[in-house]
Amino acid sequence: MSELKNDLILRALRGEQVSRPPVWMMRQAGRYLPDYIKLREKYDFFTRVETPELACEITLQPVDQVGVDAAIIFSDILVIPQAMGLTVLLEEGKGPMLPKVVATKADVDALITTGVEERLSYVMRALALTKRELNGRVPLIGFAGAPWTLLCYMIEGKGSKTFDKAKQFCFTQPELANTMLQKITDITISYLKAQVNAGADLVQVFDSWSGMLSPADFKVFAQPYLVQIADAVSGHAPVILFPKGSWYSLGDLSDSSASGLGLDWSVTPKLARQMTKDGITLQGNFDPSKLLAPISQIKKEVTEMIDGFGTQRYIANLGHGILPNVPVDHARAFVDAVKEYEASARPSSKESVKLNE
Amino acid sequence: MSELKNDLILRALRGEQVSRPPVWMMRQAGRYLPDYIKLREKYDFFTRVETPELACEITLQPVDQVGVDAAIIFSDILVIPQAMGLTVLLEEGKGPMLPKVVATKADVDALITTGVEERLSYVMRALALTKRELNGRVPLIGFAGAPWTLLCYMIEGKGSKTFDKAKQFCFTQPELANTMLQKITDITISYLKAQVNAGADLVQVFDSWSGMLSPADFKVFAQPYLVQIADAVSGHAPVILFPKGSWYSLGDLSDSSASGLGLDWSVTPKLARQMTKDGITLQGNFDPSKLLAPISQIKKEVTEMIDGFGTQRYIANLGHGILPNVPVDHARAFVDAVKEYEASARPSSKESVKLNE
Repeated sequence: MSELKNDLILRALRGEQVSRPPVWMMRQAGRYLPDYIKLREKYDFFTRVETPELACEITLQPVDQVGVDAAIIFSDILVIPQAMGLTVLLEEGKGPMLPKVVATKADVDALITTGVEERLSYVMRALALTKRELNGRVPLIGFAGAPWTLLCYMIEGKGSKTFDKAKQFCFTQPELANTMLQKITDITISYLKAQVNAGADLVQVFDSWSGMLSPADFKVFAQPYLVQIADAVSGHAPVILFPKGSWYSLGDLSDSSASGLGLDWSVTPKLARQMTKDGITLQGNFDPSKLLAPISQIKKEVTEMIDGFGTQRYIANLGHGILPNVPVDHARAFVDAVKEYEASARPSSKESVKLNE
Repeated sequence: MSELKNDLILRALRGEQVSRPPVWMMRQAGRYLPDYIKLREKYDFFTRVETPELACEITLQPVDQVGVDAAIIFSDILVIPQAMGLTVLLEEGKGPMLPKVVATKADVDALITTGVEERLSYVMRALALTKRELNGRVPLIGFAGAPWTLLCYMIEGKGSKTFDKAKQFCFTQPELANTMLQKITDITISYLKAQVNAGADLVQVFDSWSGMLSPADFKVFAQPYLVQIADAVSGHAPVILFPKGSWYSLGDLSDSSASGLGLDWSVTPKLARQMTKDGITLQGNFDPSKLLAPISQIKKEVTEMIDGFGTQRYIANLGHGILPNVPVDHARAFVDAVKEYEASARPSSKESVKLNE
């Protein structure tokens, strides 16, 4: 790690003193960036994901153009269902589609859990290439979807407002659901370890749909698998868990081996700190839609957000992925506002003392 | 009210002693009921809404067939945008569509706020007819969409995963947004009062999309209007506010003039009671997907839910609308489980004492 010129995010995750909070944005690679949109016109989604040179180029764009403090490898959470033997289609502008879903015990039994490093070798090659191209500028983040969220797609075959088919599967066949979630957990652990071996400095686990579960069901169908992943991977690299919508789980997850917890914008900084007993690094939680507000307002609200979380054990981020319709200069304003907070928070400045209270 | 044979829900809302919790289900009229589906094949959506005899028949179906303790008038929250001058289309199986949305100050200025009683006279006639047909069996619930939720549809023109167009409108033009929200509030107050005059015994305000807002933005774009509505209507009939996803607002809203607060399933009974300082009637919060579980499990979890909330100042309900694919006998099992809790909670039964602890 000594070769990293900017290790703010790793320091924040280890609970070490930082000069200012690190900042990155979920889905920062893609969507709203004109250079990404140009690539999208030439190559389809899985070509972009599966070609290390393209994935690397896309991963670097926000580092070069927006100035974030970490790169996150351009990929997709649905590569794991693919590695497990399912077909995933992605039509541009639409959500993913799995023509054949998991429905029966035989389907669960047929899921592959081995050989992920070979099956997803293009991800490891993209990581290695990106790590080299980054040349120590900022740390590289690897990632995976959480078992519950992947189960949702593998059962439903597409996005859903309620994911009631996935829930029905779990509620009526909890043992089979457990078998499936465990299989996804096992392969995800191998996959994240392989990502670390290939060059990822830290990893994040996205539980995008965990908020669909009640607190009691979260403890059955999401939490145990998140905890297992954190336990298995945290010896290799810091792990951030992002259970979107599951603010109720913050207390429990802060006792896990994870180094950081991602937050959506439904929870105030104060409550999040209370629930986690100031014991873990928190990441988030700017409403992505707020990047559509005027730049002056973005800067004001970023300052308020950092006031709320404090500058230590904190990673500035959005509360969910950046929206495709965000102007690039608004994204940059978000990043700049975090970086400028450092200046305004210096004890020599009168105003900063107030901001830091 | 003396003519009501079953006034459990009104007693619960007034904080009076009840022999058991009342129970109803959001969206109980429609969707999953075979007799409703037959009507749907004959009459389109707005014909069903605008024909008092049909609306009445649909409203009574779950009272007769599932045994709920309250009827809720069959209607739609988008009748208010219609009354304000917008066109709303509804294609069966798809969400609503507004071909012309609100985008400019001129559009906001053009919104109509008067004459709602005449414009929506079919709702009042449906209420009066249903009240007569109910003949005191159970109370009749009127309802409206909350201003924030209606603004979402009026700006976006349809449902959305993020409602970022609506949020952009509010974040970039907060004063215009306030004007629009106030206009919706004004007409909604008139509308709810008219519903009470026509026969509604209580009313519920649905803020289906309030959970899209951060706690700070909820206080700007949702809460003031919910509070105004509760203040203006609560002298006429008890008001239940349902800010879906906005668990963070429970404390503030429990200090309003509302008689009850609706809860989705992301909050535990215990935390909801804590946040509202045991000071208001709570309604909810069964995960609608759980009605797809086996009946034995539904019954077990209903019992646990009532254990959590207690039998007083509590209205058993789902945490959101019933899903179209719920078998009728599962819906009935939910209702029966609440009614049976009464029996199992009698002091003469040993087991019941434990349940009531």
